[in-house]
Amino acid sequence: MNNLKVYNSLKAKKEKFIPITPGNVGMYVCGPTVYNNVHLGNCRTFISFDLIYRYLKHLGYNVRYVRNITDVGHLENDEDSGEDRIVKMARIEKIEPMEIVQRYTIDFHKILMEFNTLSPNIEPTATGHISEQIEFIKSIIDKGFAYEVNGSIYFDVLKFNKTGNYGKLSGKKIEDLIHNTRSLEGQSDKKNPQDFALWKKAESQHIMQWPSPWGIGFPGWHLECTTMSTKYLGEMFDIHGGGMDLKFPHHECEIAQAEAVNNKEPVKYWLHANMMTLNGKKMSKSTGNNILPKELINGDSKKFKKPFSASVIKFFILQAHYRSILDLSENALLASEKGFNKLITAIENIDKIKISKKSSLKFNIKNWLKKCYAAMDDDFNSPVLIANIFDAVKYINSLKNDGGTITIEEKNKLANELNTFVYDILGLVSTTNNFESNDTKMLNKTIDILVKMRDNARLNNDFKTADKIRDELKKIGVELHDDKKNSTFTIN
Amino acid sequence: MNNLKVYNSLKAKKEKFIPITPGNVGMYVCGPTVYNNVHLGNCRTFISFDLIYRYLKHLGYNVRYVRNITDVGHLENDEDSGEDRIVKMARIEKIEPMEIVQRYTIDFHKILMEFNTLSPNIEPTATGHISEQIEFIKSIIDKGFAYEVNGSIYFDVLKFNKTGNYGKLSGKKIEDLIHNTRSLEGQSDKKNPQDFALWKKAESQHIMQWPSPWGIGFPGWHLECTTMSTKYLGEMFDIHGGGMDLKFPHHECEIAQAEAVNNKEPVKYWLHANMMTLNGKKMSKSTGNNILPKELINGDSKKFKKPFSASVIKFFILQAHYRSILDLSENALLASEKGFNKLITAIENIDKIKISKKSSLKFNIKNWLKKCYAAMDDDFNSPVLIANIFDAVKYINSLKNDGGTITIEEKNKLANELNTFVYDILGLVSTTNNFESNDTKMLNKTIDILVKMRDNARLNNDFKTADKIRDELKKIGVELHDDKKNSTFTIN
Repeated sequence: MNNLKVYNSLKAKKEKFIPITPGNVGMYVCGPTVYNNVHLGNCRTFISFDLIYRYLKHLGYNVRYVRNITDVGHLENDEDSGEDRIVKMARIEKIEPMEIVQRYTIDFHKILMEFNTLSPNIEPTATGHISEQIEFIKSIIDKGFAYEVNGSIYFDVLKFNKTGNYGKLSGKKIEDLIHNTRSLEGQSDKKNPQDFALWKKAESQHIMQWPSPWGIGFPGWHLECTTMSTKYLGEMFDIHGGGMDLKFPHHECEIAQAEAVNNKEPVKYWLHANMMTLNGKKMSKSTGNNILPKELINGDSKKFKKPFSASVIKFFILQAHYRSILDLSENALLASEKGFNKLITAIENIDKIKISKKSSLKFNIKNWLKKCYAAMDDDFNSPVLIANIFDAVKYINSLKNDGGTITIEEKNKLANELNTFVYDILGLVSTTNNFESNDTKMLNKTIDILVKMRDNARLNNDFKTADKIRDELKKIGVELHDDKKNSTFTIN
Repeated sequence: MNNLKVYNSLKAKKEKFIPITPGNVGMYVCGPTVYNNVHLGNCRTFISFDLIYRYLKHLGYNVRYVRNITDVGHLENDEDSGEDRIVKMARIEKIEPMEIVQRYTIDFHKILMEFNTLSPNIEPTATGHISEQIEFIKSIIDKGFAYEVNGSIYFDVLKFNKTGNYGKLSGKKIEDLIHNTRSLEGQSDKKNPQDFALWKKAESQHIMQWPSPWGIGFPGWHLECTTMSTKYLGEMFDIHGGGMDLKFPHHECEIAQAEAVNNKEPVKYWLHANMMTLNGKKMSKSTGNNILPKELINGDSKKFKKPFSASVIKFFILQAHYRSILDLSENALLASEKGFNKLITAIENIDKIKISKKSSLKFNIKNWLKKCYAAMDDDFNSPVLIANIFDAVKYINSLKNDGGTITIEEKNKLANELNTFVYDILGLVSTTNNFESNDTKMLNKTIDILVKMRDNARLNNDFKTADKIRDELKKIGVELHDDKKNSTFTIN
């Protein structure tokens, strides 16, 4: 059905993509923990998997795309210690945790809508699957891979590792993990420090808690993804995606949990999107080397001299391969903006090329198409696809500028394929916040005609005409400002 | 703190609004069952409660607004029989129920965003509160008001009615209910036909099911609202809202469930929004007398000759009191459109009124403000508020047209108050799909200047100027079409 190859993190190599059930793809992507505004690095991950989702659909697959919302259970650090992130924010802001969840879920959806990503088919929440998570924990206990201490349930990593392979995704060795894991305060319940919580006992004053066979508590973060992915995609599904930083421990734990119960590899292809840096350094809230998507789009950050539209930012992101580290900077965005505008203009220019039965197109569309698909088939290589698209742009512009001709069939083919790649697969949008509307451009050009006519009239001492133009423009709210020779205008 | 009176359906009269906790308001509104596109009548309900939410916030209350999403448990008819609405749609479309939920939740949010309604503070789902619902059922059983039959749990209405008053909200008498309720197939489990399900046993092939102390099943529809409202707003809260059609049995059952457990009135003020008819008849899918908001906005329905913007539809809805039946028709919408445009233009016109130390305003702003607040304080009477606003519009337009003057203080006051009422409280938006942008209007006016100059030149046999204007316009894509005397233009 296709020639797609994907880089499987589990095997650390590219593999031919063969879905478990022909024609169907199940894809799970780890979504956000909704306790603050989504950051740009997260957006990159979701834009990357949007590209993958769009391309799989384009290839004709029936894709079920599941992306979760983590609204409980994600503690402040990965060692099962610290406060729940949402509970902490609720405590600081003195509101109900679900208000925090609502606020940042809406923010998340709004931002992703600005980036024109498609909604997943199912968007399950952790609190929406407490009952399922409790059942999953019961199964892990039944299989002997979890133990209860003091109202909390922990996964027994060492026991799992006797038959399973904890570390196979991240490439970490269990011996190193044991050696490197410090014993932290409040973790004395665990048999071994590398064990992780499936269920945490809640103190009575804890504001997010549910009853369970082990008492009042809340589920562990790793558990929700295993529970929800297998609920909606089955015990074994095709693609599991997420940010590179989730490989360990989150995804490693997901594998352990699923294998403990179902005794089989849960995921055929593990895909990981790489991180984004800002001006060459890691993005981090604590150092201040950080920017929110909204700040970049609205021009509210001192780090950037001008705003950039969501489409330009998305184009910038897609100009890098999803597995490469991508550095955000003003210069890089300016270059992307130029490229993006050039691309959109070229697509509009196709209509302006002269049609003839004789074509002067020195460009083989069929070969070009092959190259475009080869790029996407090579682990969704969007930068190579975009480079190919710019080959077409070059030919379109030269035909338009040199007055060359093209057959109607060639024109339609070129327009269709470019629209497919640019709008359907890359998911770019031509009308953007930063773009002046066509009418605004036209308005400025039309006023320019009047201003030049008036400047000419003044040069020829035809003050009657000059005054008339000034008065007529003033009536509709355009104010002229006269210089010695020329005029400029402002629109009120 | 305020003079607000609200019509309390429970008492069938207007009452002074005194919140349970001074300064704070808890409000719960029954949200949609997400198994198909939200219909216009539903939108009216949510727009009505958006007005109420906005006004309460404007009065300075700290409002927690909870609106649920029903994603399981709502059966095809109110007698606890028929299939779950979401499961049925999933079966018809052969997809997972949660995909149905996702699709129509997104649709719902998009439509409400077009109507510029504010998001509630919490938007809980029924599937997200299975654990809480099971606990609530346990409490009802403990209190002796529910019984188990064959894996299902029913609420014992007759027993509740011995101490409580089943029917007090809807005004129905228990004797009539007993007399009028037919015994339907599949309901033989119930002791009495007016009992209602708290938990329904799921057949093994049922695709939405959860474990419970009574076996595998799913929660009843009435239960979710009681569980979620009390979870997020407490055992007793200020306002419970919903469509008039939910009064019985849904809200009646909510009261019974809550009182059975907490032994107190759960809600201080019950508010109900009335229904919408289409061309004088009840809206109904089966008769085809029906229109989706999207169809009305996009102009996709044969029932209406032209599209109407979301802002105009919202304005039309707010021109009726939320407790009145509202009839939708082409003529009514055309009238609203005219009124809405007049209103927005008047607000823009305030800036064009001449400022002077001497005012010719024959309009007492302070008295006018009092009337505006009196309207809203009288059970959120938006049509009376809008009538008052049009009094102000009349004065603004006459000042602007007759060259009257106004002091800077009056101007600022008038502008601020109008902005508050129109944009903050009514939640209208001035820029709409139907509205031409300012630049588009300006462009047409500017081209008009050039066309008239050219027509003049032609009259005076100045063909050089006439041709120059035609050529310059052509260069920027404006084509002139000459008539004997005048020209028209098209923009390419």
